Amino acid sequence: MNKLDVPYKIYLDEKEIPSSWYNVRADMKTKPAPLIHPGTLKPMTFEDMRPVFCDELIKQELDNDTAYIKIPDEILNFYKMYRPSPLTHAVFLEEALGTPAHIFYKFEGNNTSGSHKLNSAIAQAYYAKKQGLKGVTTETGAGQWGTALAMACSFFKLGCKVYMVKVSYEQKPFRREVMRTYGASVTPSPSMETEIGRKINAEHPNTTGSLGCAISEAVEVAASTEGYRYVLGSVLNQVLLHQSIIGLETKAACDKYGIKPDVIIGCAGGGSNLGGLISPFMGEKLRGEADYQIIAVEPASCPSFTRGKFAYDFCDTGKVCPMAKMYTLGHDFIPSANHAGGLRYHGMSSILSQLYHDGLMEARSVEQTSVFEAAEMFARVEGILPAPESAHAIRAAIDEALKCKQTGEEKTIIFGLTGTGYFDMVAYEKYNDHVMTDYIPTDEDLAKGFAGIPNINL
Amino acid sequence: MNKLDVPYKIYLDEKEIPSSWYNVRADMKTKPAPLIHPGTLKPMTFEDMRPVFCDELIKQELDNDTAYIKIPDEILNFYKMYRPSPLTHAVFLEEALGTPAHIFYKFEGNNTSGSHKLNSAIAQAYYAKKQGLKGVTTETGAGQWGTALAMACSFFKLGCKVYMVKVSYEQKPFRREVMRTYGASVTPSPSMETEIGRKINAEHPNTTGSLGCAISEAVEVAASTEGYRYVLGSVLNQVLLHQSIIGLETKAACDKYGIKPDVIIGCAGGGSNLGGLISPFMGEKLRGEADYQIIAVEPASCPSFTRGKFAYDFCDTGKVCPMAKMYTLGHDFIPSANHAGGLRYHGMSSILSQLYHDGLMEARSVEQTSVFEAAEMFARVEGILPAPESAHAIRAAIDEALKCKQTGEEKTIIFGLTGTGYFDMVAYEKYNDHVMTDYIPTDEDLAKGFAGIPNINL
Repeated sequence: MNKLDVPYKIYLDEKEIPSSWYNVRADMKTKPAPLIHPGTLKPMTFEDMRPVFCDELIKQELDNDTAYIKIPDEILNFYKMYRPSPLTHAVFLEEALGTPAHIFYKFEGNNTSGSHKLNSAIAQAYYAKKQGLKGVTTETGAGQWGTALAMACSFFKLGCKVYMVKVSYEQKPFRREVMRTYGASVTPSPSMETEIGRKINAEHPNTTGSLGCAISEAVEVAASTEGYRYVLGSVLNQVLLHQSIIGLETKAACDKYGIKPDVIIGCAGGGSNLGGLISPFMGEKLRGEADYQIIAVEPASCPSFTRGKFAYDFCDTGKVCPMAKMYTLGHDFIPSANHAGGLRYHGMSSILSQLYHDGLMEARSVEQTSVFEAAEMFARVEGILPAPESAHAIRAAIDEALKCKQTGEEKTIIFGLTGTGYFDMVAYEKYNDHVMTDYIPTDEDLAKGFAGIPNINL
Repeated sequence: MNKLDVPYKIYLDEKEIPSSWYNVRADMKTKPAPLIHPGTLKPMTFEDMRPVFCDELIKQELDNDTAYIKIPDEILNFYKMYRPSPLTHAVFLEEALGTPAHIFYKFEGNNTSGSHKLNSAIAQAYYAKKQGLKGVTTETGAGQWGTALAMACSFFKLGCKVYMVKVSYEQKPFRREVMRTYGASVTPSPSMETEIGRKINAEHPNTTGSLGCAISEAVEVAASTEGYRYVLGSVLNQVLLHQSIIGLETKAACDKYGIKPDVIIGCAGGGSNLGGLISPFMGEKLRGEADYQIIAVEPASCPSFTRGKFAYDFCDTGKVCPMAKMYTLGHDFIPSANHAGGLRYHGMSSILSQLYHDGLMEARSVEQTSVFEAAEMFARVEGILPAPESAHAIRAAIDEALKCKQTGEEKTIIFGLTGTGYFDMVAYEKYNDHVMTDYIPTDEDLAKGFAGIPNINL
């Protein structure tokens, strides 16, 4: 069955874990646009960011030039717990599809946070600890990022305050309890602990919360609590830097076994996984050393790349964060309530936005029932029940493999399997009961979101 | 930190997956007592078992002599999806405890079933398929075994009917949906589909079900549906045979890296994990080639080994199954409702019972709050949130390591980490909220269970 001379699962030796992160910005001819201050419209400086972010992380955020940044030993030590992650040859999927394509996936779900988020969480917790801080704050929706951060803070004995969107806090108690088991405080948002929370509760007494509101609360608490800073699990340059570990390991495994990918596929919400997975391959492409077809996959119900505008916009609905230039649906855009599968962010990493704008990668959107179809098939043949987010990449990988079946091409496809779906069984239940529906926003729906994008030309 | 010259996580090469299971019965001087027919009290023959069990599995059940049984290629092929499982050096736990002991754990949770149950599920599904059957039936409580069987049946395109204890079906919908995603039918038990189910529903209209009742339903359906057989995830000799893969891999990893275990620890419910983990080590002990301290860990609220009787008893409360000689609390014994952590079975594998009776292993019981204390500590330092069942072994391993701290002994301790606790967060929530309580049955409580054990002397 295994048509290539490679193991089914490639585990690098722990000595082969990359010792530096790779900063793709160093090789970009057009650098990603800087974050700007919403008042002055000037690029955010180190000092501007200090009240909210950790010093070392701000340096990483602003560094467009250093290609390789050494991973501190303490972080490498933690990575050893769950890395290197396997690069798996999807032989059972290939057989089920009857495709001549070779399919591989880099699986980031074999850790208790259940996703790749831990790669950046541990780095951010480490730098906070090194700075002598007492703790960090963050927001979480479904809870993958919050869980990862709780694990990381527990490891470094750092305080961790998580603001969890109220509807998730109540409807997803399992993730909440994982965070609490790791010693994090988890507060349903909007809460009565913050000014913005009290304001929102007063205006909307029955609100079930939103990610935008949770961000605002977490930022307020970080800025007003001594020894605390705010951390974020996606979108930012620093996050893509940390997540480059995914791509670097993938590349090392490919090089070790002579695997030459033609197509690289990742799901894209804020861009943390996709940006990490593709980074060293994109680096080769930017330096003219190799070419790859790189595909971002997003939900049809939240199509930032495929139908968004490339513009400066607010990163959060509460407008407390700096503005970023990115593909955006507008900071007021909220995906349809029927959308179950994560990847709900209105914007996109500035790095990925620039690369996409420059034609260095492509994007496509997929509808959720077809995503769950792919998820079910994958679960049955490959034995891993994927997170709905990851299943967007599976969908696209299957589609590419089926194209190869038609053309007879023996392409090598690599996709990122970001995590497991154990905490997303409510969505699977909808699919199993055949009550899951699709929704594609109309042009009028999108126009409402676009109307909120400020008109800034820098 | 790593005091031994071994990797943090030992992954054997996939070519090093054992090609045969090891049947510890072949080396036992006193063989485990045979299953007997409850009517005739005669040992169950191949023909007696055929209406309910698959032919090849009956052969394995009755085979006390063949030491090594070849693993069919189709099963090895499936094992490749998630095996070899890692043997992890618990350096972070050692450091947190400040112990001179070396602690290792064999982790079986990196698969979607979340536990070691898949090792036997795939074997049982394979033999059912090979026999040309249409499907299998089983019962499940919390759902680990049902999930594993659903995955296995899906792989071989075999029907899978799971009878799930009604209270779990309603309160643990996530596991139910995982099973459905793999195409299994999941029926809350007692159902109206079977004679025994209708009878129990008529007698107890509001019953939330029990494992004993679910077994009876699954056996009835298997015996009355053409092309169906019944399968079971623990207790039976065949299950321990399949689970020997855990111990064989552990032993291979130890031999490869010169690790010499002094103490081997496993949690024990029906005995599937413990029996599998210890098998090759017990084989050496039985053959006089090596000595190990082997410890079974059970909940204080369901203390089959430490407070049970060694006697013939019914394997199920419904008395539809054959009788087994084992350490038992009586087939009517039901652990206190406050007991959250699995391992609720009243009896124990006949193989392990005989080995324990012959003084070849020891047993201890632990209380559940101390188990969750160990679980929390382990989760925080080793990054894996354990299943409550597995945490019984963690508790004992920590206790042994702390003894070494007092004595200064540099013992090597290996324990089995059978699975993850992602579907057990309700129990963790109780622990996090400090409302978890302990209960140790009184002698009077046990006497009630003992009263139901039939008086059979063979």
